[in-house]
Amino acid sequence: MNIAVVLSGAGVFDGSEIHEATLTLLALDQAGVKYQCMAPNVEQYANVNHLNNEPSQNKRNVLEESARIARGEILDLAEVKSEDYDALILPGGFGAALNLCDFALKGPDCTVNQEVEKLILEFFQDRKVIAAMCIAPALLAKVLGKEEVLLTIGNDEGTADAIEACGAIHRDCTVGDIVVDEANKLVTTPAYMLAKGPAEAWLGIEKLVKKVINY
Amino acid sequence: MNIAVVLSGAGVFDGSEIHEATLTLLALDQAGVKYQCMAPNVEQYANVNHLNNEPSQNKRNVLEESARIARGEILDLAEVKSEDYDALILPGGFGAALNLCDFALKGPDCTVNQEVEKLILEFFQDRKVIAAMCIAPALLAKVLGKEEVLLTIGNDEGTADAIEACGAIHRDCTVGDIVVDEANKLVTTPAYMLAKGPAEAWLGIEKLVKKVINY
Repeated sequence: MNIAVVLSGAGVFDGSEIHEATLTLLALDQAGVKYQCMAPNVEQYANVNHLNNEPSQNKRNVLEESARIARGEILDLAEVKSEDYDALILPGGFGAALNLCDFALKGPDCTVNQEVEKLILEFFQDRKVIAAMCIAPALLAKVLGKEEVLLTIGNDEGTADAIEACGAIHRDCTVGDIVVDEANKLVTTPAYMLAKGPAEAWLGIEKLVKKVINY
Repeated sequence: MNIAVVLSGAGVFDGSEIHEATLTLLALDQAGVKYQCMAPNVEQYANVNHLNNEPSQNKRNVLEESARIARGEILDLAEVKSEDYDALILPGGFGAALNLCDFALKGPDCTVNQEVEKLILEFFQDRKVIAAMCIAPALLAKVLGKEEVLLTIGNDEGTADAIEACGAIHRDCTVGDIVVDEANKLVTTPAYMLAKGPAEAWLGIEKLVKKVINY
């Protein structure tokens, strides 16, 4: 098995949520499963000083920042062939809703990065498992909404409404659990949409990764 | 209990090793132990593009980058009072040897950031546990070398020699194990000095955190 992990920067407020991404890699590695991190080679939508949550002047590139989580072992999404992978996992963080699509700004009217959309569609059409956590299920809602996919982002009403406006069905879920769309082979978990710390996030992420591997 | 975790940026080549820092927080949180991340408010010594390991022009601040790992919940080391904490943990990454001291450049002749040195000395003098992983034990060697402290950085001969040149005693250690200096209450583990991935790093880090908590 080889699992594709799509990152969106490094830092919860403008990139991948670092704990979610790291714990995804931990769960895969503990299961003895190979993974490959990848990210789009585009400028970040926003650059946020994580000390005070204020905008920062430094421009950052999504692929370069994601490489920090991947310890340099990362691919440009433009080079990725979906046939090389058995499943797809999308960690969360605002990067998923700012850099991979603009759901954080436009909700159901968002646009998805073309390479990300292509990858999701290819995995879906090939009947491979797709998993997403935190806010990243919004990407699946936007790309696959017309298939009436079943997803969770936890229990935030506004976000759940926006996801249903994409055509997806939202189901509330606790931080330690996962929602599985058996028909469409989708697995989602709230992670830091609800987690109070890494131990809570780990509960749902480990369960998600185990389901992806043993689907 | 409240554990102080000192970070040095966010990214293995110029800051804290992201997996080591995250897994430290996971182990503490799983044990139900409170932690507080902290970092010096100084410019990074180097800024490395983690995609190609080449220098980057963007200047970065150690505290701001560390805040990405801490999800914004971080203190400036200048504000930290050692009496508020029961133990100290130093994750690794080049940041520990470039931003917290310059051991990566000068070996045993390195200089340690004054706030970091003060913190280590206060914990040591108060007989509180100090733990370090990866290259961060070099900091303890430099600050506490004259106490003949016992440490590990794994089995790299050159680094071990440089640590012994500081006055410390180096003991080889496997990735899943820890070295404990019972007399001086120090705990160290190799982490990514030897780990081939997060699952291997987790073995030693979880053991280190459990020892810190149950000392």
